[in-house]
Amino acid sequence: MREKLTKFIKNKWTQRFILFVIIFNSIILGMMTSNALMAKYGNLMNHLCNICVWIFTVELAIKLYVYKKSFFKDGWNIFDFFIVAVSWVPTGGVFSSFRVFRILRTLRALRLITQLEKLRVIVQAIIDSIPNVSWACVLLLIIFYIFAIMGTTLFATDFPEAFGTLGKSLFTMFQLTTLEAWPDIARDVMVKYPFAWTYFVSFILISSFIVMNVIVGVVVNAISEISEDVKKEKLKKALKDSDLELELFNLKEQIQKVENLIELKKL
Amino acid sequence: MREKLTKFIKNKWTQRFILFVIIFNSIILGMMTSNALMAKYGNLMNHLCNICVWIFTVELAIKLYVYKKSFFKDGWNIFDFFIVAVSWVPTGGVFSSFRVFRILRTLRALRLITQLEKLRVIVQAIIDSIPNVSWACVLLLIIFYIFAIMGTTLFATDFPEAFGTLGKSLFTMFQLTTLEAWPDIARDVMVKYPFAWTYFVSFILISSFIVMNVIVGVVVNAISEISEDVKKEKLKKALKDSDLELELFNLKEQIQKVENLIELKKL
Amino acid sequence: MREKLTKFIKNKWTQRFILFVIIFNSIILGMMTSNALMAKYGNLMNHLCNICVWIFTVELAIKLYVYKKSFFKDGWNIFDFFIVAVSWVPTGGVFSSFRVFRILRTLRALRLITQLEKLRVIVQAIIDSIPNVSWACVLLLIIFYIFAIMGTTLFATDFPEAFGTLGKSLFTMFQLTTLEAWPDIARDVMVKYPFAWTYFVSFILISSFIVMNVIVGVVVNAISEISEDVKKEKLKKALKDSDLELELFNLKEQIQKVENLIELKKL
Amino acid sequence: MREKLTKFIKNKWTQRFILFVIIFNSIILGMMTSNALMAKYGNLMNHLCNICVWIFTVELAIKLYVYKKSFFKDGWNIFDFFIVAVSWVPTGGVFSSFRVFRILRTLRALRLITQLEKLRVIVQAIIDSIPNVSWACVLLLIIFYIFAIMGTTLFATDFPEAFGTLGKSLFTMFQLTTLEAWPDIARDVMVKYPFAWTYFVSFILISSFIVMNVIVGVVVNAISEISEDVKKEKLKKALKDSDLELELFNLKEQIQKVENLIELKKL
Repeated sequence: MREKLTKFIKNKWTQRFILFVIIFNSIILGMMTSNALMAKYGNLMNHLCNICVWIFTVELAIKLYVYKKSFFKDGWNIFDFFIVAVSWVPTGGVFSSFRVFRILRTLRALRLITQLEKLRVIVQAIIDSIPNVSWACVLLLIIFYIFAIMGTTLFATDFPEAFGTLGKSLFTMFQLTTLEAWPDIARDVMVKYPFAWTYFVSFILISSFIVMNVIVGVVVNAISEISEDVKKEKLKKALKDSDLELELFNLKEQIQKVENLIELKKL
Repeated sequence: MREKLTKFIKNKWTQRFILFVIIFNSIILGMMTSNALMAKYGNLMNHLCNICVWIFTVELAIKLYVYKKSFFKDGWNIFDFFIVAVSWVPTGGVFSSFRVFRILRTLRALRLITQLEKLRVIVQAIIDSIPNVSWACVLLLIIFYIFAIMGTTLFATDFPEAFGTLGKSLFTMFQLTTLEAWPDIARDVMVKYPFAWTYFVSFILISSFIVMNVIVGVVVNAISEISEDVKKEKLKKALKDSDLELELFNLKEQIQKVENLIELKKL
Repeated sequence: MREKLTKFIKNKWTQRFILFVIIFNSIILGMMTSNALMAKYGNLMNHLCNICVWIFTVELAIKLYVYKKSFFKDGWNIFDFFIVAVSWVPTGGVFSSFRVFRILRTLRALRLITQLEKLRVIVQAIIDSIPNVSWACVLLLIIFYIFAIMGTTLFATDFPEAFGTLGKSLFTMFQLTTLEAWPDIARDVMVKYPFAWTYFVSFILISSFIVMNVIVGVVVNAISEISEDVKKEKLKKALKDSDLELELFNLKEQIQKVENLIELKKL
Repeated sequence: MREKLTKFIKNKWTQRFILFVIIFNSIILGMMTSNALMAKYGNLMNHLCNICVWIFTVELAIKLYVYKKSFFKDGWNIFDFFIVAVSWVPTGGVFSSFRVFRILRTLRALRLITQLEKLRVIVQAIIDSIPNVSWACVLLLIIFYIFAIMGTTLFATDFPEAFGTLGKSLFTMFQLTTLEAWPDIARDVMVKYPFAWTYFVSFILISSFIVMNVIVGVVVNAISEISEDVKKEKLKKALKDSDLELELFNLKEQIQKVENLIELKKL
């Protein structure tokens, strides 16, 4: 029984069917945002939506039965589990007024990422690049915090909309970092405080420098990783090709070692 | 006959004449946007335009006769064929009210790209870089779609202009990705829904990260390709140099020298 | 006595305690921006703030006693000293109307950077990248200055808000460099001076080119540094490996093998 | 006589004096934008300005006498000559109403670039990077032109401000390329033409792609140049250091050649 289910769940066609259901469900969810369509086919679409959730649940149940504990070892499985679990949160009846519950359904479209290998790789790459930039983000947050306190202290009474509370100031800092509409705020403030330009210009320069640092870090990291990969591939290729290339590869490596040793001896 | 035409069509001066006609036609098309010029020289410019189309058609006919089936093997030829074919869509008479047909003429300026080698190379490079980024674009589209559904569900009734339908929400998402005027929309929405900042900030962070990922991917790809090209050029250069055995002889000699030097240092 | 204090100040737990005090102080400073909280717990928060300053002062005094003159050799120590010294500038009484003095307290949150190794490294990297771009910044400033003088000369009388004085023009130039809301200013000016587009478009192109040059410089520098680091690591690795003579012996053997292989291929 | 002048003009202190005069002149030019200062010290500043021009003219005359024809072989000299020549264009009297003549004086601040080696290098680097991107710029211009004609044809009657003439449309295209305030224009147009989003979105995507291509090209070029430079430096270093390193350098090169030859033989 369990073997059969393993085969079934790993089958290419089952995978494709699940992919189709995810896309179909996403389209239905998109159509459900239209009031005109909801008035006409509301019931039908709700039913189709429920069927999709049932299919996902059955798929998940089979996977849980097949993989047992090892199911939760894969982050993507936990992600799928969470999305399907959230789908069973009631949205009708008493809860119909909470639109927030309803939007959780939309996350089901994210299952496309877990289902498609290529997308998983990209998301993984983006997640992997976070540790490299996390400390730069902490630095950015500290700068945000300091300038937000300064902004609130200086401008809260005169410009309550942009700097009224610490939260508002932090949002304004985020806006300034994206450089969006910063002259509007700055020119407003500068009418009252002519020296406010130091505050805005210094924040923009500092935050831009940190953001640039983050991007440069990501680029450099990606390049150094690529060159590592290229080297490994060369090695693999060299092993597959004739003895001649392998020998030359070794030869070059040896000479590199000699060179290094000579350099070391000089130190 | 066919040989003569082949020579004629490949002739440097024919090519230059066609290039001149394309530029001349583009200038005429630009001048035709001016009402003042149209009132005065409208007929003349229409005639000149038609002459250009005739020249393009004759050129195309010769090419089709010369290259026969192999004509359609080159993507740029198909592109040229399409542009010239579109030029024969009637724009006057009954169709004069369809301005959309008239703007198709403008595409003739694109023939500059097919005619100039250098531009073709750049466009080819841009087209070639698309597969590398296509999956990241799919990811971006999924994120667009999810946030658009969320936005429509949450804000459609209160902000019909930005989030009224799924289409409008998708356009708003594109706007947010370009970071353009996002605080205007966000601050409007936040007046009614104070926690809407989570929606906007998270979307901007996620979409920026993906776009950054796309750009980094293109940069890294371009760099790795450059280093490949450099290697190939080296290979070509080596071809001109001396023979394999001679090289190995030199190699042995060099190593002998190194050995001697090391021996000397030890003394 | 001095040895004990050295041990105490270098102790892991002392360091962590100071880190905790910095974070605690930063949170208090953030809470002090809220009028509601100030009305209720104003006194308490002021007292806590003072305690934090006392702790910082004691820490600094110990460090000064322990390290003596060498204390001022580290830039980060001078930075800490300055921040703590600034904390003793009186903010109450006669000075309570100078909000500028009060915002200096906020800088204490910057001590997080001096306390956390990882942040110090990033800030150091950013500071180190400044010399590489400083001349490009000088160039940018010259361009700013020239276009600001031009703008003031040409548009001061008609557009006093954007170009009224040299200072205002310089601020406008900074705004144009961030590309923010430039069409608003440009279209306004172009109503009166139709050829003003040459001024704006040329400034945007020139400043964008220089900024791009700065960014490219930083990226290239970071990449070349990375490759330097990779080399040094290789060198270290080689140190652990076998001896120079052994390497050369292997080298000769390899070349012999290559020669044999080539001979074989010729047969 | 000529030798003495050569020595004098190449003297470190003469150079510094000229640099000082340029900076002094630039400051005066900046001060002359202030009406208050002009009312008080207008005459004095005009006199100082004239003295500076006389100094520049004398310097130029000496250089012309010393270098003769070879003076015009250096682009920077021609640049200096042009700036000084322009300074003698009359600005008072009949011409006082032409503010355009007056702003030409401002260009004298550009002499800072010709006088400071470091700035000259950066400007040279920027100028050298232009050929690499010039064809991409031509491509961008063609796209600008086509979309401008399309925009004028479609929207001229309804949106005369943004698309009234071909020139206005080209300016709007430039604005769209900087992404600045594009949703304002697009949303306006979309009220009348709901499908106009295809026009705006496609233009933004295409122009962004080309601009990205240009930037990537510049980055890649800078990196490949850096690695070339690093190689040359290595070579120089190897020559200065002991024979041993030189030999190993040659050794590596030889092996590279062998490898290339083997690869070639396989093809």
